[in-house]
Parts: sequence; C-alpha cells; structure tokens
Amino acid sequence: MKGRDGFFSFTPLYTDLYQLAMGQAYFLDGTADQPAVFDYFFRTLPFGGGYVIYAGLAPLLQALENLKFEAEDLDYIRELGFRPDYLSYLQEFRFSGDVYSMKEGEVVFPLEPIIRVEGRLFEAQLIETLLLNLINYQSLIATKASRMRMAAGHRVLSDFGLRRAPAQGGLLASRAAIIGGFDSTSNVEAARLFGLEPAGTMAHSFIESHGDEYQAFLKFVEANPERSVLLVDTYDTLRSGVPNAVRAGQEMTRKGIRLQGIRLDSGDLAYLSKKARAMLDAAGLKEARIVASNLLDEHVIRSLIEQGAPIDIFGVGTKLVTGVPDAALDGVYKLSVFDGQPRMKLSDNLTKTTLPGRKQVARFSDGQGFFMADSIQLADEPLPERMFHPVEPGKSLDLRHYHDEPLLEKVMAGGRRLKGEQSVKEIAVYARQRLQQLPPEHKRFEFPHVYKVGLSPGLLALRDELVAKYRRKFEGG
Amino acid sequence: MKGRDGFFSFTPLYTDLYQLAMGQAYFLDGTADQPAVFDYFFRTLPFGGGYVIYAGLAPLLQALENLKFEAEDLDYIRELGFRPDYLSYLQEFRFSGDVYSMKEGEVVFPLEPIIRVEGRLFEAQLIETLLLNLINYQSLIATKASRMRMAAGHRVLSDFGLRRAPAQGGLLASRAAIIGGFDSTSNVEAARLFGLEPAGTMAHSFIESHGDEYQAFLKFVEANPERSVLLVDTYDTLRSGVPNAVRAGQEMTRKGIRLQGIRLDSGDLAYLSKKARAMLDAAGLKEARIVASNLLDEHVIRSLIEQGAPIDIFGVGTKLVTGVPDAALDGVYKLSVFDGQPRMKLSDNLTKTTLPGRKQVARFSDGQGFFMADSIQLADEPLPERMFHPVEPGKSLDLRHYHDEPLLEKVMAGGRRLKGEQSVKEIAVYARQRLQQLPPEHKRFEFPHVYKVGLSPGLLALRDELVAKYRRKFEGG
Repeated sequence: MKGRDGFFSFTPLYTDLYQLAMGQAYFLDGTADQPAVFDYFFRTLPFGGGYVIYAGLAPLLQALENLKFEAEDLDYIRELGFRPDYLSYLQEFRFSGDVYSMKEGEVVFPLEPIIRVEGRLFEAQLIETLLLNLINYQSLIATKASRMRMAAGHRVLSDFGLRRAPAQGGLLASRAAIIGGFDSTSNVEAARLFGLEPAGTMAHSFIESHGDEYQAFLKFVEANPERSVLLVDTYDTLRSGVPNAVRAGQEMTRKGIRLQGIRLDSGDLAYLSKKARAMLDAAGLKEARIVASNLLDEHVIRSLIEQGAPIDIFGVGTKLVTGVPDAALDGVYKLSVFDGQPRMKLSDNLTKTTLPGRKQVARFSDGQGFFMADSIQLADEPLPERMFHPVEPGKSLDLRHYHDEPLLEKVMAGGRRLKGEQSVKEIAVYARQRLQQLPPEHKRFEFPHVYKVGLSPGLLALRDELVAKYRRKFEGG
Repeated sequence: MKGRDGFFSFTPLYTDLYQLAMGQAYFLDGTADQPAVFDYFFRTLPFGGGYVIYAGLAPLLQALENLKFEAEDLDYIRELGFRPDYLSYLQEFRFSGDVYSMKEGEVVFPLEPIIRVEGRLFEAQLIETLLLNLINYQSLIATKASRMRMAAGHRVLSDFGLRRAPAQGGLLASRAAIIGGFDSTSNVEAARLFGLEPAGTMAHSFIESHGDEYQAFLKFVEANPERSVLLVDTYDTLRSGVPNAVRAGQEMTRKGIRLQGIRLDSGDLAYLSKKARAMLDAAGLKEARIVASNLLDEHVIRSLIEQGAPIDIFGVGTKLVTGVPDAALDGVYKLSVFDGQPRMKLSDNLTKTTLPGRKQVARFSDGQGFFMADSIQLADEPLPERMFHPVEPGKSLDLRHYHDEPLLEKVMAGGRRLKGEQSVKEIAVYARQRLQQLPPEHKRFEFPHVYKVGLSPGLLALRDELVAKYRRKFEGG
C-alpha cells in the first residue's frame, strides 16, 4: 500500500479520553505492563442479513506499527493535567503486542472473536478506540457492498459514494467496497492508494456549460475516448439525451472510436434502460453499455434485474458508503484475560455477557466445502467434538463429521507485522471465495437462516463457573 | 486551528474521476478558464425535521487554499492515460476562485444556495466532490446534534462516538457535534485540533482487570481525581456498582476529594438513574453527577427527561456520528452561470430543476427577530417585496413588513480566505443563537411546520423562461 503523508499513521490522540485516564491509573498502580488479552467481536448482524465481511485489518496493523506519542501530543496531554511521570511513560511507548486475527475478507458471525490482542494492559487498552473505529466501519461497508454484489450478479458495480461519504471516511469506504465485491470506484485517491480501478462518467454541468447537448457529447468523447460514457438526463432522457448520444456515437464510429456507454441518473431506470437499449441497438451501438445511478441499494438493484432492465453497470453512492439503514456495526473490544486469570463482563442477559479466556475459533465445513458451523473454544483446548448454543446450552451440535479449520492466526508479533500486505484485490478475491462457501440460506435478504456459532465444552464450563461465582457474590452480599 | 500533518490539506485526487475527465475536455475545448458559477444546496430535510445546521465551511476553505497537484499526484494521473499538455495545466493549478457562503452554523433550508463558488470552470468543477464530502456530512451531524441539544435542555451532552464513527470521519464528526450544541467530546485529537472540551469516564475492562470493583474505583479516583466518573454496570448496577461507588465516594470525601459522578451504560436508564440518585444522595454524595450512555438519540433523551430521570450528562455515540436514520444529507453542487449565461438542469419535477443565475438569499424576520421566510433572488436584483412558492407560484408572500438580511457573504477571494478563522465554539454559539430565532413550530420533532423559502419575481421569471425554452425545443423536436 502506497501511503501519502503516512495516511495510516494515526496520532495516539485519535482515541477516547478515557483510554488515557485509565492508562494513568494503570501506570500508577503498577499494572500497566502486566499481560492482558482483549477480543474484538460484534453482537448484531447488520441489514437483517446473515453474515458480516470482516474488513479493515491491514490499515489497522499499519496504524499500530506507527503508533507513537510525538512531542506535540505529549504537550497536549500535559495541558490536560496528566502527570509528568506518566508522560515520560507515554514518550517511550510503542505498541509491542501480539495480534491474532481472522483473514481480512473472512465471512464472520456474532460473538466470535475476530481479533485477539495480547500485550501489556496499557497498550492493549489504548488501541481500543482506533481498532473499533477502523474495523466497525469498514466491515459494515464491505458487508453492504457484498449484498449489492449478490443482487447485481455478474454486472459491474462501481462506487460513486465519495460526495456523500462521511468526510475522510470516504477513503476507507472505497477500500471496503472493493473488498465486498465492487469492481471500481470514482474515488481517485482510493484507487491510487489501494490499487483499485478508477471509474467515472460526466456531470450535468458539463452538458449545461456547453449549452448544446450534442456538442457537449462530442467534446467529451474527443477528450476522453476511453471514458466515453455520456450522461443523458440533463434535459430529457428519451427526447434529447439518448438521441444525442446515439448521434455522437455514430459520428464517433465513423472516426473509429467506440462509444463506451450512456448513464441514466433519474427517472424510472427499468423503463428508461429498456427504451435506451432499443435506441442504441437500432443505431448499431450494441456495444455501448448502460450505466445506472440514483439512490441504488441491493433491493433496487435486485428489482431492476427482476424487471429485465438491461443495465450493465450500477453506480452506487449514498447507500453504500453510509451503510444505511444500520450505519454502524456494533463491534466491541473486551478484556478476556488479565494477570493470568480469565475475565468477563456480566450482564442480566447472557448474550451480553462476554466470553472469558484466551480463545480460538474453528470453522467446520461439510464434504463440499460449505460452512456448517463455527465453534469458539479456549486456545489451549483440543478442537471440540461437540459445541453448545451460547444461550441455550441444551442445544448442541455434533462436529465430528466436519472438516475443521482454525480461523485466528498470528498477524503481528511484538508490534511488527508478520506478513507482507495483501492487495485489496486479493482480499476481495478471498472474501468472494469464502462467501461462496457460505450456504445460500444464510445469504438471502429475507429472514436468513441463522449460522450456528457455539461454545466448546471447556469455554462453556469456564463461563458458567465465573457467572455462578459472581452471582453468588452479589446474591449472597 | 492547529493542524497536524496538514490535516485539512487534501490531495486533489480526493475527488471523483469524472472531475479530471471533464477537466481534460474543458482544457482541450478552451473553456477551462472561462468564468462559471456553481451553487451548493440540498433538497431534503433530514430526520423528518424542519431545518439543517450548516457546518464544514472552515475545513473546506482551508482545504481549498492548500489544494495543489503534487508530483506524485501527476504521476498517477499520467498512469491513468491523461494527456501530457493537460498534466502541465494541472501542475500550475491553484484554486483561485471566489467563494460566497452563509455563516458556518447558520440555520438553512432546502433549495437555497448555501455556498456560491465563482471561478474558472475547471477549478469550480474540480472542487465539487471535496465540497460535497465535507459539507454534507458535517451539516448532517451538526443537525443531528442540535436535535439532541433541544431534547436535552440544559443537561450536558458529550460525544462518545469515535469508536462507531466512519473511520477518519470521526474527527469532523466531533467538530460538527459541538457546532450542533454538544458540550464535550471523548475524541482527544478533535479536542486538540478544534479547541474542544475533552471528556471521558472508564471502561468495563478497567474494573475487570482489577477484579475487585471497589478497589478499581479507588485506584481510578486516586489516579484521576478530576475525572472521577465511575462506571457502575460491570457486574450488577444496583447491587454492586452503585454501592461500591458510594463507598469509594465516601472514602474520597474523607480525603478531601469529591467524586465527580457515576456512569450507567446498560439497563433501564430511567429506573436505574432514579435508584442511583437516591443512593448517592442518601450517602451525602449529592454533588456526584449521573452520566448515562447506551444507544441514545434525541428521542430516548426526551423520553428519559419526560420520565424524570435524574441524568446530568448524556454520552451519545453511534446515533450521533452516523446521522441515522438518514445517514446522508442530499446536498448537491450545480452549475448556475457559464459564459455569462444562466444555466440549469431540467427535470420532469420542478423541485429537481435547478435555479439558474448568480443568486443571493435574504432572510426576513419579524419584529421580535423570529425568522419568517427566506427568499432567493438574482444577485443583481433588488430585495423582493413579494416572493413566490418555488413549485406553486400561485402562492406568494408579502415581505414588506419584515426585516431583511442577506445571507451569502464573500469568504474567499482569488483563492485566499478573507477572514480569520472562527473557533468551533464561536460557530456553536452562532448556531445556537440562530436556532433560537427559528420559531418553535419549525423545530418540533413531529411534522414540523415547513419554513417558507420562495423565489423573487426576477428569479422566477428567469427560471420559467428557461424551462419554457427547453420544453419548446424538445416538444417541438
């Protein structure tokens, strides 16, 4: 990845204040350098869907390697009233932990640890906000993009979202869109940084500034013969835009230049694309493709295809980069081991109780390679032969006839990345492969079948023992 | 504003590819340096509300001043196949336009130009994506924040959203939250860059790492006496957390340190806050404040206050920084003048037809200073005495008895900012004042009364003349 001004180096101040306040307490009570383990996981599947595509790992690891308190950071922390001895500690700080992670692009499910961070308590705590900020958003967008990919089939999907993206979040939105299955992006900087395919057409202003639509089309094609997609709805799509595009296309054909296509950006896209297709074909412009944009999402794309709309390329903006209607993945980062002891957060609700201990996740597949279930177990426990429902332990699943595969692997040791970075396109290929291994009933939009994630006997016993211990304490006291 | 690594200098590649492609066509046909005027406006009010708080101007102007194609940018553009003579043009490029804008923090409404950019066609077009990216998101978040401010009354609102924010978008989200009326942010970097109040409490992991909740509280208060807000729901809010916080608070009182407060992060916040308040008061800790967090939005805050929940501080995260349920403001940037001629985009729907010509907006207020209506007129037209509904011109409003105030003022000339930058807090004060001048019926959450935005006679005549001209053209042909 080619960085500009170290884009993925973040100041450690890009965090919540409480990380610094807790850090000062750890520093003072002597626990700052004690070993701790934290897990990243989420609880709720977005979009009413059946899975999440995990994205954001590479920028996170790059940021962790570069994390450092500069003099100006320390000056500000001093202004906030933190202690001088703590500032000296911060000045020496570099992230030196180990990180275990699933592969970026993995298909992941609620409750399972997707990232496990092992390090000194101070450092493992400090990175919480940055980790959540980078992983929650990118995973949400990659997941949204993958739904559009399913709806679009083999058709081209292009990210047009930068203008509605959340400020600088637009850069990683485009990256995540490609991981989820998009083909290209209008975002030139993202294309450069991540080696993506840049794509684009023209704006209404181009037509308006020329006054005459036909002349505008000719000028644009002459200047950009390889990018000759003409926007046809500035004045009137079927009475002006498409006829002028056809004339321009025929004129270009005489000059040996092939018109790339037209773009529809308003009106009834199903109706207009059929009419436009017929007009282009009748004029011998069979190779000109139809691009459609305007508030598309996976449901609109699916509906257009069901209606037989001859659209070749979908340009998707707002509903991709904002991840509506959810707009956030509820990923959290929770302590699971400290001082050699498993730790957990209790809750009245077992689904909100965290899972204690240092854990691994295994995926079980059937003979055809389809994913059947994921089990969460203690890292030093043998792979389970049977796993248990996390909330209703009477439900269990025999795993003996499936192929198993551990999902968490070490990606950072002592604060240094262990592997060369994959390209975004490689991550996207992995995501697509993994999604193909997920049975279709987990991928449908309406009430997808719940993928089974269970606990190993060892983990279940540990959790229940700790819950019972705390319950006795509070109910006794 | 103190920048770090020039945070608000963006590479001009942070744009849609089509800006560069259109630029090449303008360069080749000789129109790139012809004067043009573009307007920024939005069409739809978010959140079912009655107004938008305009935010994002200062970062935009800073970015425009710094906009420059570096050698590495040109290398990439060359790789994309753009022409060498065009690359030379880009190499010389600096933004040299004039920008007119409403004040940042203004209360704004659909259809009215909020920013007017006048410059060479190339430069005014190039900045479209960056402008939309910065203004749409920040205005959305400032508007969302202002709704929470209305619901919260005098209570403290703190932005806790960084972990669910859209990647680097979290920095400007925090800025926008303060403009909309928040008091503080957990985002330390945003606090530093924008001079905001940083705020925070502690995480569950802090309690869990100490094992004993009471000891954890003592350690935290000793290390952070000025930030002693104790999170009480790690194990059991009323049976463990609050009693331990009370003990710690009493212990601290004996040492002359005042417990700042407790934080509730789960469960029924109305019920728990009342119980906790009673327990704190009974223990003589009347000054300890109650912070509540957990999926708050303006509706939950209002409901909690209606129930009499004694909550002093609301910490709001996800639903602030994502701007759900809308997640995007539909702001657009449209050509209105080129080559000395007014320009427009037609549409079957008059509300989607753009307004031609160089325009000004005037706000009309009654004798008490309450905003009554905004009119859009041509910049060289006298202030209108009567304005007309943009879609139903039979409806009009007599403006003669109101005080008028022009809203667009020149903020950048020849690419240089004209004024010293206001602090974010000053912008927030302005937004609050302006919102106070908006009559309450436009601010209610349920079916707010529509604020009147109308067209002057001159603008209406110009628009209708152009519409008629185009209609004749297409209906004739």
